[in-house]
Amino acid sequence: MNHTYAVIMAGGGGTRLWPVSRKKHPKHILPLLGEDTLFQSTVARLEELVPLDQILIVTAEGQAEELEKQAPGIPAKNFLIEPEPRGTASVVGLAASVLAKRDPEAVMLVLPSDHYIRNRDLFHLVMRAAVQVAHKGYLVTLGITPSFPSTGYGYIQRGELLHEKYNYPVYRVLRFTEKPDEEKAREMLARGDHSWNSGMFIWRVDRILDEFARQMPDLRTALKKIGATWNTPEEQRVLRAEWPRLKSVTVDYGIVEHAENVAVLLAGGLEWSDVGSWDSLFDILLPDQDGNVIVNSEHMLLETHDTLVYSTEKKLIITVGVDDLIVVDSGDALLVCHRDQAQQVRQVIENLKKMDKNDNL
Amino acid sequence: MNHTYAVIMAGGGGTRLWPVSRKKHPKHILPLLGEDTLFQSTVARLEELVPLDQILIVTAEGQAEELEKQAPGIPAKNFLIEPEPRGTASVVGLAASVLAKRDPEAVMLVLPSDHYIRNRDLFHLVMRAAVQVAHKGYLVTLGITPSFPSTGYGYIQRGELLHEKYNYPVYRVLRFTEKPDEEKAREMLARGDHSWNSGMFIWRVDRILDEFARQMPDLRTALKKIGATWNTPEEQRVLRAEWPRLKSVTVDYGIVEHAENVAVLLAGGLEWSDVGSWDSLFDILLPDQDGNVIVNSEHMLLETHDTLVYSTEKKLIITVGVDDLIVVDSGDALLVCHRDQAQQVRQVIENLKKMDKNDNL
Repeated sequence: MNHTYAVIMAGGGGTRLWPVSRKKHPKHILPLLGEDTLFQSTVARLEELVPLDQILIVTAEGQAEELEKQAPGIPAKNFLIEPEPRGTASVVGLAASVLAKRDPEAVMLVLPSDHYIRNRDLFHLVMRAAVQVAHKGYLVTLGITPSFPSTGYGYIQRGELLHEKYNYPVYRVLRFTEKPDEEKAREMLARGDHSWNSGMFIWRVDRILDEFARQMPDLRTALKKIGATWNTPEEQRVLRAEWPRLKSVTVDYGIVEHAENVAVLLAGGLEWSDVGSWDSLFDILLPDQDGNVIVNSEHMLLETHDTLVYSTEKKLIITVGVDDLIVVDSGDALLVCHRDQAQQVRQVIENLKKMDKNDNL
Repeated sequence: MNHTYAVIMAGGGGTRLWPVSRKKHPKHILPLLGEDTLFQSTVARLEELVPLDQILIVTAEGQAEELEKQAPGIPAKNFLIEPEPRGTASVVGLAASVLAKRDPEAVMLVLPSDHYIRNRDLFHLVMRAAVQVAHKGYLVTLGITPSFPSTGYGYIQRGELLHEKYNYPVYRVLRFTEKPDEEKAREMLARGDHSWNSGMFIWRVDRILDEFARQMPDLRTALKKIGATWNTPEEQRVLRAEWPRLKSVTVDYGIVEHAENVAVLLAGGLEWSDVGSWDSLFDILLPDQDGNVIVNSEHMLLETHDTLVYSTEKKLIITVGVDDLIVVDSGDALLVCHRDQAQQVRQVIENLKKMDKNDNL
């Protein structure tokens, strides 16, 4: 029997890809990169590793229907719906509780639904190695080799090499650092012993539930109540009663950063991106000889270089004499942003909220 | 009796203001700068000088109805419709022939319909002075003091001072130069004896018809035939028979540049613009403290300077970290252009024509 399960976290927003990614149409359910959505690619990437029946999706009420449509091979009962967003600790806890009931020996791959990985074969090798390490009782993180001093990712510092016979180098984790400022990021890159935290995790269900019991006992208690009534007529009543009281925290901060026996597997070569902002999308797509990328739009680029033009509708977009721009048209809204300023889109969203422009969120 | 008549040339396109100015909605019939259209402002500017009944509009078939709506005070019979575009020589010739029949002593002000003049009082003074000069038999051009070596305007070189008792300095014209390259433009600016050709002319109808007879005798002959049947049941038949055979040429090139007794009146201080391109529109509008101008659109400009954001529809436009841009959204098309490259929009139009994108023209 295959004890490997995947848990896809598919409830997020992806606000830095505004105006295409919206509250009601977040980035993982959009065909951002072509025919498939990021969510569909995440599922497709798993098919060689895990039977479809062993893929769980944790998502929000408003997205479940669309996701079921996009992954018709996954049984409806595998879609777990958060009554409201309570952070990834709650998401992982819920999935772990449900899996523990189904298969006490389960190993779970925890995967965001909105990441991009070009090298799918390598992903399979990496995940198989990670599952081996997880079987030994480690909480496994996937570390990405940093290519620049990013302030958009968390960092993982590695300590001793754990085991030499895995296909991949696996180290004990010394320390996690949340998104740093640029100076700190440069320091970490210079040290040479830091990876980016990819946000993908691999662990045994019993191990992670033990960590919940040790570090977040209130959550563990609530999860036990929810788990006890799961697949019974009481399921939804208990879930809805317990959920809103949960502390909203990420699984990184709430559990992984202070867990015992945390390992980092160096997953070089995946060609991974969290597609977290327009500049990272730009990095994924193949530019033409002028460095330009055009997506979904009619276009005419005159004396234009290193510019991304993205439209969700058939629209004629023309640029003249510009460099290093990101131009995104979503019909009701238009973003024109310098490539180096793509992180500022988060600020745009904050401003829109303050201005009560809910139609644009 | 007031022998002063105005002829507004309102058949043009204004392609460099694409995508707002379109074949079917050219710039002079659009409220580019606020409530009034450029055409309406042109009419309003004349009201103190000329009775409405003495304003003639020469326009194209597709625009006449809209223009009549925009200037309800002008009698319908004053709208002269070109069967097809044949250049401004034909336009001026037709208007002169019609006026000669109506009032042999007529002086005509020839005015484009799509120029901007901030200082309306000064315009009145200038025009009254020009009419005085025209009465003496001169073909009067209005010269604008150049503020930079523009390659977008024609230039007028002045010779001897004609007369000191006019309110404005009036010179005999030495030479016209069509739109020069930048080096030539710099030379002319350095000489200090050149003005921009504003494209506004003031002359007696008998004088200009004499010039037509001397320089473009074929056109004069055709115009005589048209004039002879004007206001008769034969009018349209003759006009439509003669018009397509006319040589298509500008009045500048066909007549003014080689006419006798051409004068230039230095019209400093009008705050004039031909609104010929997005950068010139930018120059007219008042920027905020960051140098930005926003027209007709919701907006949020973050770390943005010296940028024009223009939308014909209610749309949220956001710019982040950009300088010196022109961003124009017309619903079906979007232009993002460096401020220094605004003249290239003409090239855009040429490309669209080649690509047969007629819906976008």
